[in-house]
Amino acid sequence: MTDWGTYLETMRSQAPLVQNITNYVAMNVMANVMLAAGASPAMVHDEAESGEFAAIAQALTVNIGTLSPHWLRGMEAAARATREAGKPWVLDPVAVGATALRRSAGARLLALKPTVIRGNASEVLALAGADAAGKGADAADSVAAAEDAACALALQTGGVVAVTGAQDFVTDGDTAWRIDNGHPLMPRITVMGCSLTGVVGAFLVGQDALPATVAALAYYGLAGERAGAAAQGPGSFQPAFLDALYTLGPDDVTRGVKVTQA
Amino acid sequence: MTDWGTYLETMRSQAPLVQNITNYVAMNVMANVMLAAGASPAMVHDEAESGEFAAIAQALTVNIGTLSPHWLRGMEAAARATREAGKPWVLDPVAVGATALRRSAGARLLALKPTVIRGNASEVLALAGADAAGKGADAADSVAAAEDAACALALQTGGVVAVTGAQDFVTDGDTAWRIDNGHPLMPRITVMGCSLTGVVGAFLVGQDALPATVAALAYYGLAGERAGAAAQGPGSFQPAFLDALYTLGPDDVTRGVKVTQA
Amino acid sequence: MTDWGTYLETMRSQAPLVQNITNYVAMNVMANVMLAAGASPAMVHDEAESGEFAAIAQALTVNIGTLSPHWLRGMEAAARATREAGKPWVLDPVAVGATALRRSAGARLLALKPTVIRGNASEVLALAGADAAGKGADAADSVAAAEDAACALALQTGGVVAVTGAQDFVTDGDTAWRIDNGHPLMPRITVMGCSLTGVVGAFLVGQDALPATVAALAYYGLAGERAGAAAQGPGSFQPAFLDALYTLGPDDVTRGVKVTQA
Repeated sequence: MTDWGTYLETMRSQAPLVQNITNYVAMNVMANVMLAAGASPAMVHDEAESGEFAAIAQALTVNIGTLSPHWLRGMEAAARATREAGKPWVLDPVAVGATALRRSAGARLLALKPTVIRGNASEVLALAGADAAGKGADAADSVAAAEDAACALALQTGGVVAVTGAQDFVTDGDTAWRIDNGHPLMPRITVMGCSLTGVVGAFLVGQDALPATVAALAYYGLAGERAGAAAQGPGSFQPAFLDALYTLGPDDVTRGVKVTQA
Repeated sequence: MTDWGTYLETMRSQAPLVQNITNYVAMNVMANVMLAAGASPAMVHDEAESGEFAAIAQALTVNIGTLSPHWLRGMEAAARATREAGKPWVLDPVAVGATALRRSAGARLLALKPTVIRGNASEVLALAGADAAGKGADAADSVAAAEDAACALALQTGGVVAVTGAQDFVTDGDTAWRIDNGHPLMPRITVMGCSLTGVVGAFLVGQDALPATVAALAYYGLAGERAGAAAQGPGSFQPAFLDALYTLGPDDVTRGVKVTQA
Repeated sequence: MTDWGTYLETMRSQAPLVQNITNYVAMNVMANVMLAAGASPAMVHDEAESGEFAAIAQALTVNIGTLSPHWLRGMEAAARATREAGKPWVLDPVAVGATALRRSAGARLLALKPTVIRGNASEVLALAGADAAGKGADAADSVAAAEDAACALALQTGGVVAVTGAQDFVTDGDTAWRIDNGHPLMPRITVMGCSLTGVVGAFLVGQDALPATVAALAYYGLAGERAGAAAQGPGSFQPAFLDALYTLGPDDVTRGVKVTQA
């Protein structure tokens, strides 16, 4: 039986420097989430330095939330440099089906073979070329409806795909896991998914992508459960969530995960 | 007698997708405010996709807080597409009198006839072409001093103008309302006005602009009263405010509004 | 003996309008920190208006956290205008040693002779041309190791250099001070240093740069001590910190500072 808490322990012992090119909405919360978890985030996006910085960082995350053609060039430079250096990177394809710019960005970044793709069901469906219902950042499709698309994407990229929602689904195209940790308040707070992408990036450093992603999602959902139990609403949830990410230890994760092989 | 709570109820039943082109300072808080209120915010700004996305969204808000010429092009494309589609949009003319770029942006966006303009007294005075004292984001003029300018602007655009401050003033150039909800801590927290603009945008979907704006302001101020009563300062105010936006129901609004016809 | 609280009192009595060109991660928190302290922040960055706005503002802060060539032009225009008008400005050289773009930006901004430079030890070492260990936003060198570099930089610019960490070191190249206020949780929260830069900028208006900077750091660290005593982790620290900045008075500062001449 997997001791899921060891993935958190290993991540913390490394305090990995993770470069994040994310959207303007997520920047602050993502950095705080990663610091609370025990990683060292750095937000470096411009094409004038994003590839150069990727040589220093131990992992990369790319999120297309508030996209522009200029930022897309910085994302591609960083992803290319990270991939060429044999380091892991995570793609977060926010609202990838909504506009031509996003569909094009999704295809270009997919070609750089992300180690992990983390998105909601509508985003994973759109990225896989299927019809998706979601228009904004919120999913309008069920996670179950995106399982086949997730497997197909994983086989196409040779990486891992994580579809997150009330129940998460994580697969490398061969094996798959379901994670039931989480709290109903989480969709009522912005950038919870974007910030999770950073935690996944930190867990990937020096660890196998599939179980590391599962462990990251379970740890994150468990922190959400703790925060949700203490919160009066989405406002008080947020400080409680950062406190939980900070205080949860490997043993708490091992005991608290709700993970099953699919 | 108007049942003001029904405007909140209708907004929540629709959970409208609202596109927001706002400043970097406001992005995260505005998204959380709108999610807590019950709307679905999407931050999509670049001219490469802002007009295309406007076809999907049900309303638009535009805020010139951290302006640049590039973003202004994205704002105009989105406002034009929203207006052509007959959907509502809100203009938030942050510090519009402070620089030539802002005065020009104000004039260009005004020509696209916003459904609602929401600003502080100094901004409404500057937008109307009057001398205004405010230089930064904070108002240096009283709401009362901006009432004539608000009426003139409303007649010029054919829309609604909301001047917010200790007492709010809302008019379509014909009828006018005053709203006394709110709390003295609110000006000590950044982007409270910017985030309110998003809530106004959500209330406009499928509802009459004048009463919907009044109801949005009263609901927002009422949440501020609740948060202020629980807060020890501007830090603890913020989570309490999101919790209040989330937990306040239509009946609370109907009972708690302090609205009078001017 | 210096009455350090008077620097806070003078700052609050002026509520100075401070222009900040900072990174995307810091914008919201920095604005809230400055409002809670009693200043009036304005975020205006684009070269199309940054120099023009500098004529209105009473001080400027520049932070290169999420740098791009375009923003660098806006920073230089604002710093030049501020300097020519004889008003104070603060440089925050985030991760200045990490990439060629940052090294170039550091050199260009240094040539505009900032009134105060505030950075961590690795950043001050890199800016002074020494070998530094830090790669991201976190310092990997001790404050003590950067004291000589700080003095050299102060003599080079004719300004003040503040190296912040567990113990802060502030010098004008002649006299030096050490500040021991602060809390161990502070490095686990993002943009605490960036936001401090804004507070320093507000304290500089109409006050001597060296003691005003020492007073700003002591006040900020004291607020951190209060918040840390009340917090369960980095999440609950944040609202408590803003509340402490807001409620601490000049007398609290005078009594609570831990300042010694070096």
